[in-house]
Amino acid sequence: MSDSPLRVAIVGLGTVGTGVARVLCEHPDRMTNRAGRPIELRRAVVRDLSKPRDIELPAGVLTTDLDKVIRDPEIDLAVHLVGGLHPAKEILLALLDAGKDVVTANKAIMCEFGAELFERAREKKRTIAFEAAVAGGIPIIATLSQSLQANQITAIEAILNGTSNFILTEMLACGRPFADVLRQAQALGYAEADPTMDIDGTDTAQKLVLLTQLAFGTTVSLSQFTRQGIDALELADLYYAGELGYTVKLLALAKLQNQKLEMHVQPTLVRSDRPLAKVDGPHNMISLVGDVVGQTWYAGPGAGQMPTASAVLADVIDMAIGRAQLTFERMTQQYLSEPFPVQPAEEIASRYYLRFNAVDRPHVFADITHILGKHGISLASVIQHEAPELDENHASSESIVPLVVMTHRTTAGRLQAADGELAELEALRQPRVYMPVAD
Amino acid sequence: MSDSPLRVAIVGLGTVGTGVARVLCEHPDRMTNRAGRPIELRRAVVRDLSKPRDIELPAGVLTTDLDKVIRDPEIDLAVHLVGGLHPAKEILLALLDAGKDVVTANKAIMCEFGAELFERAREKKRTIAFEAAVAGGIPIIATLSQSLQANQITAIEAILNGTSNFILTEMLACGRPFADVLRQAQALGYAEADPTMDIDGTDTAQKLVLLTQLAFGTTVSLSQFTRQGIDALELADLYYAGELGYTVKLLALAKLQNQKLEMHVQPTLVRSDRPLAKVDGPHNMISLVGDVVGQTWYAGPGAGQMPTASAVLADVIDMAIGRAQLTFERMTQQYLSEPFPVQPAEEIASRYYLRFNAVDRPHVFADITHILGKHGISLASVIQHEAPELDENHASSESIVPLVVMTHRTTAGRLQAADGELAELEALRQPRVYMPVAD
Repeated sequence: MSDSPLRVAIVGLGTVGTGVARVLCEHPDRMTNRAGRPIELRRAVVRDLSKPRDIELPAGVLTTDLDKVIRDPEIDLAVHLVGGLHPAKEILLALLDAGKDVVTANKAIMCEFGAELFERAREKKRTIAFEAAVAGGIPIIATLSQSLQANQITAIEAILNGTSNFILTEMLACGRPFADVLRQAQALGYAEADPTMDIDGTDTAQKLVLLTQLAFGTTVSLSQFTRQGIDALELADLYYAGELGYTVKLLALAKLQNQKLEMHVQPTLVRSDRPLAKVDGPHNMISLVGDVVGQTWYAGPGAGQMPTASAVLADVIDMAIGRAQLTFERMTQQYLSEPFPVQPAEEIASRYYLRFNAVDRPHVFADITHILGKHGISLASVIQHEAPELDENHASSESIVPLVVMTHRTTAGRLQAADGELAELEALRQPRVYMPVAD
Repeated sequence: MSDSPLRVAIVGLGTVGTGVARVLCEHPDRMTNRAGRPIELRRAVVRDLSKPRDIELPAGVLTTDLDKVIRDPEIDLAVHLVGGLHPAKEILLALLDAGKDVVTANKAIMCEFGAELFERAREKKRTIAFEAAVAGGIPIIATLSQSLQANQITAIEAILNGTSNFILTEMLACGRPFADVLRQAQALGYAEADPTMDIDGTDTAQKLVLLTQLAFGTTVSLSQFTRQGIDALELADLYYAGELGYTVKLLALAKLQNQKLEMHVQPTLVRSDRPLAKVDGPHNMISLVGDVVGQTWYAGPGAGQMPTASAVLADVIDMAIGRAQLTFERMTQQYLSEPFPVQPAEEIASRYYLRFNAVDRPHVFADITHILGKHGISLASVIQHEAPELDENHASSESIVPLVVMTHRTTAGRLQAADGELAELEALRQPRVYMPVAD
């Protein structure tokens, strides 16, 4: 191992970058002790020098000029904290081309362009590390790429978006509808000003793609699996699920079934006594099943300045020690192995929770069960509730009753086909709710 | 990285060794893919060749002669699965002396002789890896020695003994006393024929010593902190704790407080809504607090053949890749850093749960509070219960009432001093129960 300092540039000094810089500046001795050599913050690239910052950096570190990093051959490592797809991707490629190793927290580019970025790094004999891209402070990338390597992972089930989990927790705890709680989450800083990617499941799906790549070797695109967020969830369904002994979570699932990969991101009913159901607030949890180890769980802060900085700095230390390079080499080799194919969404089997809003008149329930039966969907249990006062969407002069149905195992395809016919039933009102039930 | 095979010997083919051998023999392609080179099982050292085994090994692998490993220069790595202190320690030293890297699952020798074993490995330029020594399939050694390296760990709270946790879970769930449930645990294979080390807290304490070494750099001996098992726990206290909103767990604690290390292994009241309280059955859970990341949790099977084999094999793969060597080099350097001193047991502050069995007559309670008050111990709440029918220990002609007291923060030393006087109270019967309450 070299005793010379590892010279680092931070590209993008936002919330996380500031956290990383703070630890480097406040704990230089700790970093040296852990990394076996000093870690020197040489540059921090920002868009606007005049912006007020929470941190005082040594003179000459701040710059608006990325070229000061690219063209400095003494800088070994770039901490890439630029969000979004473009120019984040181009910046990362430029850093690799300039001979820098890269630590990134950008899940979106790793999800969309992972293969290309990995390939470029291989060409240039550089290393990319991305512990911070999934689940913030929880070391799930290290766990998959290192600690569970004796296993074939057979299932990932995870809560990967803190904003969504916070909103679901609050809706249920306070009996307040989605839109209300979202505003509160924004006020508390748990949700972005534009929370679209968090609540529509995109953020979760991007993270699942990264975990799936590591666990199963399969490169999956977002278009290959069902992705649904919490933005259309009604409070009523959280209550009905609770009555049945379940908690609704925005669950990311990737499971090996008959040598095929079943994946989806959907609001899902999780049995309330399972660890994943008990994760409250903005926390993340990942459950991994391996064919040797069995089931293990990892939980903690999935986002935020310092948790994410902790993950970034773990990668920086791994780079300084030389571990990250060894891990990345194995990872890129495994990319070349035979992957498992993705099961088409319509063939994925599950039990389902269904809710219908039916006009209160004879034969409606018979019509529903007839249509479901025609498509081979059998019912495990049915609850007919009195008309709820839970929200105002159903206020009308007709008497509407909610019908909650739990099915036996069926496929998403059958359910979709049945839904086509259910949509024609004159006695059903919007919405028709379908949620899978975790095994 | 070398493409030549990593040649491995397993020393001790018991339950875990058989699991390790099985994965190596059944999944050679997986191992080669993960390790970047073949992993070849060259020898398995056993005591008795004629013993029936669950696994068929290639001809010539089984041997009773440790020298076949020691004297074979082609063997790179020994998987050391010999239990107990002696000759396990001497075997490990002999393997290092013979130039072998060593993967061990033996927490007892790592706890008792860690510094000596590390020193010998450094001298011989060899590596020791011991992921399997703590918490079975949960990658807690990797998390502490790698993933959370940017942090100063400030608190470890953990359930590290599956046998004890299983017994506590069953006692409470089935309302059965300790001795009954222990017999059941032995029948189910959750407890050894001789469960002493599991239930008296020794196993937990040894694991805590290893985690403390990694997290705080301090070498602690078992004699430096309070160690108490679950063997004297009465069912009544599990119920009373529950009434107060707590669950009793055999908790391992190591916490940085004013730059000193507070440690103990004791049955402890954990608030029932905390993740640690919800860990049921033979599982383990570790909570780590770091000054950068905040709190994270790790849970899974803490023992058993295949979970432990998963951890052993992660170390074997890390050795094949060269990561384990880098990690060990950093670890041994950190051994040399300034450690935090251990806080003397009597100075550790905590809230406490107390239970007294008092003869039902006037002034007893006043006498107790007087003694506690004299020692500066103030009461947060008191519950006087009717005489329980929970177990037979208190059957007598006198009328005995249990008094349950929750104190404000006090020190173990004050409580001990008060107990000396309480022991003299003529109206108190055995036992006097004291359990700390987790913050």
